Amino acid sequence: MKQIVECIPNFSEGRDQSFLDEIVTVIKASGCNVLDASMDPSHNRSVVTFIGVPEHVELAAFCAAKRASELIDMEKHHGEHPRIGATDVIPFVPIQGVTMEDCVAMAKGVGKRIGEELGIPVYLYAKAATRPDRVRLPDVRRGEYEGLKQAIKTDPDRKPDFGPGELHPRAGATAVGARPPLIAFNVNLNTSDVKIARAIARRIRESSGGLPHVQAMGITIDETGLAQVTMNLLDYRSTSMELVFSKIEEEAASRGVAILDSELIGLVPLDALLDVASARLKLEGFSKQRILDLMV
Amino acid sequence: MKQIVECIPNFSEGRDQSFLDEIVTVIKASGCNVLDASMDPSHNRSVVTFIGVPEHVELAAFCAAKRASELIDMEKHHGEHPRIGATDVIPFVPIQGVTMEDCVAMAKGVGKRIGEELGIPVYLYAKAATRPDRVRLPDVRRGEYEGLKQAIKTDPDRKPDFGPGELHPRAGATAVGARPPLIAFNVNLNTSDVKIARAIARRIRESSGGLPHVQAMGITIDETGLAQVTMNLLDYRSTSMELVFSKIEEEAASRGVAILDSELIGLVPLDALLDVASARLKLEGFSKQRILDLMV
Repeated sequence: MKQIVECIPNFSEGRDQSFLDEIVTVIKASGCNVLDASMDPSHNRSVVTFIGVPEHVELAAFCAAKRASELIDMEKHHGEHPRIGATDVIPFVPIQGVTMEDCVAMAKGVGKRIGEELGIPVYLYAKAATRPDRVRLPDVRRGEYEGLKQAIKTDPDRKPDFGPGELHPRAGATAVGARPPLIAFNVNLNTSDVKIARAIARRIRESSGGLPHVQAMGITIDETGLAQVTMNLLDYRSTSMELVFSKIEEEAASRGVAILDSELIGLVPLDALLDVASARLKLEGFSKQRILDLMV
Repeated sequence: MKQIVECIPNFSEGRDQSFLDEIVTVIKASGCNVLDASMDPSHNRSVVTFIGVPEHVELAAFCAAKRASELIDMEKHHGEHPRIGATDVIPFVPIQGVTMEDCVAMAKGVGKRIGEELGIPVYLYAKAATRPDRVRLPDVRRGEYEGLKQAIKTDPDRKPDFGPGELHPRAGATAVGARPPLIAFNVNLNTSDVKIARAIARRIRESSGGLPHVQAMGITIDETGLAQVTMNLLDYRSTSMELVFSKIEEEAASRGVAILDSELIGLVPLDALLDVASARLKLEGFSKQRILDLMV
């Protein structure tokens, strides 16, 4: 089975299409397949989703960070989204034939190169974090670019994992890490009462004591006027789509409403859907070895 | 997307391992991937499941039929399973990137070669059938090898689609066709009352007026003593696994029993499982393009 890693770098430039075009070109030239590239002007931030074999993904991530450090000047950057550098964050995600440990090793290798060759301080985060206070991105980004400029020099807790003990004068710092694939999953209710969607979101999200690794909000969809539970499933192996969906079904039913339909935003790992099918059919002893199409 | 066809030839030899080994060698030498090869001594029959790109599958099917015609003498063959020739039946099944029409064309191409180059009469069946009375294998096999010996010469309705107007002296005749993938799917009930499984089977199978393209029987599993509905789903695109499963759920519930679990025998097409997941989550606008692993 071919090894596949996904990488989703975020850059602090969301208004200049030519910037994004250059980054995409660099990533493709490294042998990777770009699945999505989008800009958000109000966040002044762009996100590229690409996949490839590990060596190509490592090369693409490094080259993209290098190019971004040449094109972006953090001294002039303003935007709503918290950030610490030109290449703000680089997560590596195991998709097929690679383990989380492999991706942690990739984060460390690429982080080291960015630190040493580009002179940009690097913080390892998520599964690659070297200390508990660097697991979550909000902790790594505390004070943002402007605040980190001093803190990195004066606070021993902010000393980077790789690279110099001060921010790069234009590119700032970068968080590099490894994490499971994230599933962006929305469930539409047959009600226009957003309070019901909010109540369900509170019941299922981790931060309110719900399901582990689930982020959720209740919102109203402009086009339909209907209420939606919008979610990020941060670790579908720990908290499955089936579990999340049936919990929403249950919470909705107890409030006299039903699920209309659901939608995936972006991409979903095959395993996450196979888990749903397997649970629905109560399949015993199922494995991917059973799937005809995957046997070639 | 790579083109993939599955082929599942059946041979009238189920007791000589060296025969099966030779056939598997021939198929692998044609560039195909053998997924399964099994013999049934009481049927005196063997079945090989293999996949590959269309040209390799065509070559493998022809070469296997040729080798079987050299190794098997139908004059000496006895076994419980109905059969008309050394290579009794060759179905081509579209798996990925090919249509049913492509597989019908493969059946016709390979059938013509077997008829003309090997001198074995060929009947096209299933989706490749040229007449309604050749769609079903039992109709094509009527009278079996022994009866067909005369009928092929005297009955105009038994004139083959390709090849000579008489049986090959040792290899008999061969049915060559195209069909959708078959899913062998068993559902276990939490009861030892086999009459309930039989009643459910009668409700869901096509032959008793149930769901199209579903074959079903109620049996008792020796190991557990529990009742099982054992099925072949002959066309999962017409009658989905989800529909079959929910119908069994409903019929079981109305008889006061529940589904314990289920099992797949052999292989299942990816689409069949994705349909189940998509139905369970009420996913709108889902397509395989959403699956990360399939994007490389």
